[in-house]
Amino acid sequence: MSRTGPGALPDGSALTAHQVPDRIVPGDPTRHDGDEESLDVWGFRDSAFTVLPNGHVLLTGSRYPLCGLELPDLLPWARKILGVDFALDDTHDSAYPPQVLPPRENFAFLNEVRQLLPGESLTADGEIRLRHGHGHTLEEMYAIKYGRVERVPDLVVYPADEEHIAALVEAAVRHDVCLVPYGGGTNVTDALRCPAEEERMIVSVDLSRLNRILWIDPTNLMACLQAGAVGRHIEEQLAEHGFTLGHEPDSIEFSTLGGWIATHASGMKKNRYGNIEDLVLDVHVVTARGALSRPAVPPRESVGMDPRRWVYGSEGTLGIITRAVVKIFPLPEVQRYDAMLFPSFEDGVAFLYDLTREAAPPASVRLVDNLQFQLSQTLKPKAEGLRLLKGRAEKLFVTKVRGFEPERMVACTLLYEGARREVAAQEAAVRRAARRHGGMRAGAENGKRGYQLTFGIAYIRDFVMKHYILGESLETSVPWTQVLSLCGNVKRRVAEEYARRELPGRPFISCRVTQLYQTGVCLYFYFGFYHKGVERPSRVFAELERCARDEILRSGGSLSHHHGVGKIRRSFLPRILSRAALAWSAEVKRAVDPTNVFGIGNLTAEPDQAARFPS
Amino acid sequence: MSRTGPGALPDGSALTAHQVPDRIVPGDPTRHDGDEESLDVWGFRDSAFTVLPNGHVLLTGSRYPLCGLELPDLLPWARKILGVDFALDDTHDSAYPPQVLPPRENFAFLNEVRQLLPGESLTADGEIRLRHGHGHTLEEMYAIKYGRVERVPDLVVYPADEEHIAALVEAAVRHDVCLVPYGGGTNVTDALRCPAEEERMIVSVDLSRLNRILWIDPTNLMACLQAGAVGRHIEEQLAEHGFTLGHEPDSIEFSTLGGWIATHASGMKKNRYGNIEDLVLDVHVVTARGALSRPAVPPRESVGMDPRRWVYGSEGTLGIITRAVVKIFPLPEVQRYDAMLFPSFEDGVAFLYDLTREAAPPASVRLVDNLQFQLSQTLKPKAEGLRLLKGRAEKLFVTKVRGFEPERMVACTLLYEGARREVAAQEAAVRRAARRHGGMRAGAENGKRGYQLTFGIAYIRDFVMKHYILGESLETSVPWTQVLSLCGNVKRRVAEEYARRELPGRPFISCRVTQLYQTGVCLYFYFGFYHKGVERPSRVFAELERCARDEILRSGGSLSHHHGVGKIRRSFLPRILSRAALAWSAEVKRAVDPTNVFGIGNLTAEPDQAARFPS
Repeated sequence: MSRTGPGALPDGSALTAHQVPDRIVPGDPTRHDGDEESLDVWGFRDSAFTVLPNGHVLLTGSRYPLCGLELPDLLPWARKILGVDFALDDTHDSAYPPQVLPPRENFAFLNEVRQLLPGESLTADGEIRLRHGHGHTLEEMYAIKYGRVERVPDLVVYPADEEHIAALVEAAVRHDVCLVPYGGGTNVTDALRCPAEEERMIVSVDLSRLNRILWIDPTNLMACLQAGAVGRHIEEQLAEHGFTLGHEPDSIEFSTLGGWIATHASGMKKNRYGNIEDLVLDVHVVTARGALSRPAVPPRESVGMDPRRWVYGSEGTLGIITRAVVKIFPLPEVQRYDAMLFPSFEDGVAFLYDLTREAAPPASVRLVDNLQFQLSQTLKPKAEGLRLLKGRAEKLFVTKVRGFEPERMVACTLLYEGARREVAAQEAAVRRAARRHGGMRAGAENGKRGYQLTFGIAYIRDFVMKHYILGESLETSVPWTQVLSLCGNVKRRVAEEYARRELPGRPFISCRVTQLYQTGVCLYFYFGFYHKGVERPSRVFAELERCARDEILRSGGSLSHHHGVGKIRRSFLPRILSRAALAWSAEVKRAVDPTNVFGIGNLTAEPDQAARFPS
Repeated sequence: MSRTGPGALPDGSALTAHQVPDRIVPGDPTRHDGDEESLDVWGFRDSAFTVLPNGHVLLTGSRYPLCGLELPDLLPWARKILGVDFALDDTHDSAYPPQVLPPRENFAFLNEVRQLLPGESLTADGEIRLRHGHGHTLEEMYAIKYGRVERVPDLVVYPADEEHIAALVEAAVRHDVCLVPYGGGTNVTDALRCPAEEERMIVSVDLSRLNRILWIDPTNLMACLQAGAVGRHIEEQLAEHGFTLGHEPDSIEFSTLGGWIATHASGMKKNRYGNIEDLVLDVHVVTARGALSRPAVPPRESVGMDPRRWVYGSEGTLGIITRAVVKIFPLPEVQRYDAMLFPSFEDGVAFLYDLTREAAPPASVRLVDNLQFQLSQTLKPKAEGLRLLKGRAEKLFVTKVRGFEPERMVACTLLYEGARREVAAQEAAVRRAARRHGGMRAGAENGKRGYQLTFGIAYIRDFVMKHYILGESLETSVPWTQVLSLCGNVKRRVAEEYARRELPGRPFISCRVTQLYQTGVCLYFYFGFYHKGVERPSRVFAELERCARDEILRSGGSLSHHHGVGKIRRSFLPRILSRAALAWSAEVKRAVDPTNVFGIGNLTAEPDQAARFPS
């Protein structure tokens, strides 16, 4: 690290009239061994669920708390819940990689780009192109393993700086090429799926080389990050200097700042740090008409229809975000986990409601329903000896003494961050509200485990897919008064649609509350089923997902709380935006990107073609 | 008031699956006697500063704490500061109202509108049209009293509901008429000034009849307000039901919800309640292409380039905001004022900085510089008897015992709102930080007085104008490290420009910090001078104001923190937005309002014509 400027400013009292902030300029993010990512499944190559000969499940590697633990209960429980007695040796083997078509080439563009960028900055490798043409929706992941992908980018470029990007965009405008910004590739909205009907050359602009923290301003608590900076690197590097951004989406290991802005993202700790729109102070975007940029970054402004605000949720359709200035926070004095058990989901929701009414809730508060609580119990290792006794005694106490029913009880994980004083006040508020609703402390260890399970659980989807199980999450936000009815309606609707189609066994459908607001919550659903013998299973999955979304909208929920629209939900836009609002969006897109250089096709309200990824 | 829905939901614990919020539907806002507003000066008719025969100053009426108090020190102090020994009987008498030109009439439009709206909803009265053609910039207020106004609206209409507004907009599109939404008329950006070159009929759409709270949802803490609802009425009505919106701009007595959204407003208590963008959940806008509207109001969403966000700061150029759903808050358990004295402005700023680093600052924290502190001292009545002794003793203690210098010391007013516990923690944090920077408590009474002075002070500008003194405020926002340098630079620049022009006496230039952020502050400047003998004084004033703004931008400040751009600052836009950003704004405007129905001309980056209000 190097320091610029006239020396340290330890605190505000030292401010004098002409001092400029002494900015810290960190180096490149550290590359850790074993950080290679999989191309065909979620996550790091060193981490994957596997079945041991004894039928127990194990997450390989050592990256997550879950790794290396033998999980005897997961598969038996899954069989019970799905109502299918699937055999472990009956696997659905991946045929990855599917064939991809040879690239379309716009020679004039290619010639120019080859002069602009060094040779190693371009690749037309099939597998790389394939990876840049999808995110992590169920259908996409199913298609790359068991089906085929109709259209992928024709070229992937790795610009090294903003000048490269500006030149690329200019060349794309001139030669009528379609550009697609690529960050972590973790979207779950079909946002990277290439329009099959796109006849121009499609070029994926991979931002992984724009991955640096350009400066940290410790006095004004701001930092300038390149758009390709990855969440885990951002936090690692900021922490070296005593800071955090506090933005922690479930995808933080892989997703990027640019992706967060483009999808209007939300993090698990938003109660303390805010959502992405609360964190971003300025954004630099290369568009078809030049760069949107600003000379200064004031704390808050009223300067008209600030084009920066349009970029939130623009999902790659307006330009390439290259960097942003964000707020940062000193690392919290205290970080503490906790967990609470409640007799029922209804009790848990009432607890959450009271919590928002009485205090600033802890950084993260999440409530899982009974089914997810059960799932989390199956992600515990085989207990032995004393630990076994302790576990049984605890279980006995919870169910017999406290009268919690195993088929109704739920759990809430809590993460406190802040000054000692602040955290103490929050803990007291949590205890008061929990007491009122029959809550019982389950302890810091369970809290930490529950909170961090998110990162391990992300690997389950690709694992169960090998066993003919399809699963996916979907999320929404809804006012408090509709929380319970929405959850009930969606679960009922999915069950009905499932039965009506005479699909195998029973669907898994479960929800959790992941974010709190004064006016309502964010709800996450997990949905899955066993599909062996079902024709075009990923198509059936998509149908059911659409039924769930329909029910969410009928029940007062939003189209998306933070995943975004992409292509997977764009046909619902006319249900949530008036005709004039839709026309505005379309006109604005046409006005600022007249030749549709950023033609990935997200957010357009045209009805989805029935044909998506063939499967 | 009436209640709809299935009965009271006292708290979240009562939530069950199918309950809908029981919304409260308040009646019309109460009209109070004496609430008539002046047309030619700021504020209510019953309130105005006047000079008594003894030379003391008095604010008439009984509306403000300041009212009825004899202020002996104001004018002597003003003479000293301005360096001009002006005589009280040498007044510059207002020639209000100036002549306004007869209205241009678009007969086809008029015929249609007369059929749409009842007769009493339209007026072409000259004084009413004049009032709808200006806000409260110095130049505008000078022009209506001492000059003339080139162009005013040709008609003022008072629609009663959204259907009227939709019909008006349709008719305006069809007949090529220009529409201007009108809320409280309190802007200080020339936002209502009609373009002299506008050849179409200009119609002011006065929203004062859309002034109701449509519903209050006490469970989800939301309310739906019509855009013409006035701040003081909103707070009065919400308070009847135990709630507050918490948005308190200095203009709260007169400004409207629609105006706050259109100008991207900020309130004094934003530390607790947030700025307007934090408070608004949904907005309904009638545009040239139809209504931007939504069927549901989820707490937070990611649904693409949400057109609602474009409306913030749109300043009347995109459509007519007719209503919004906002967050509301239970009235705070505790409301407490306080004040702190500091040896210098530098000490005060260091205190504020520490405060933002160590705790959630109180709802409102404002720091005035020494000159404004002196001004506030002149707004105290003549002390007599015991009070006189107490005042002298206090003064002696502060200056002799504590060693504060009367020409350097500054004051900070504090307003705490929240739960008892929360406020106690904030008070402790304030005490700790203040101690570190030589702060001394000045007491709740001084705090309350300082906080509420804002509303009385607003009347001073029109008062001193009668004595050949011109004054105006301007604001900005800036990162912490540039606060002191910006204040110093702006004061120095104004003094230099003033001296260079050989203007009378000395200028008054003073600043205060009005809003705190983690990354910086909002700064408010007051600027004034004595102009007798100066040619075209309001033009000179505008020149100096532009010099001040130039210096603000050079010093890292924003073009505006919350007043907005209007026409007064639009020529500066190219200095803060890149060419592409400006082009985007212009293209978006053209795309969504192709015939420029909302043609008031704010925010357009064309250089200002030198000719503004002739004076």
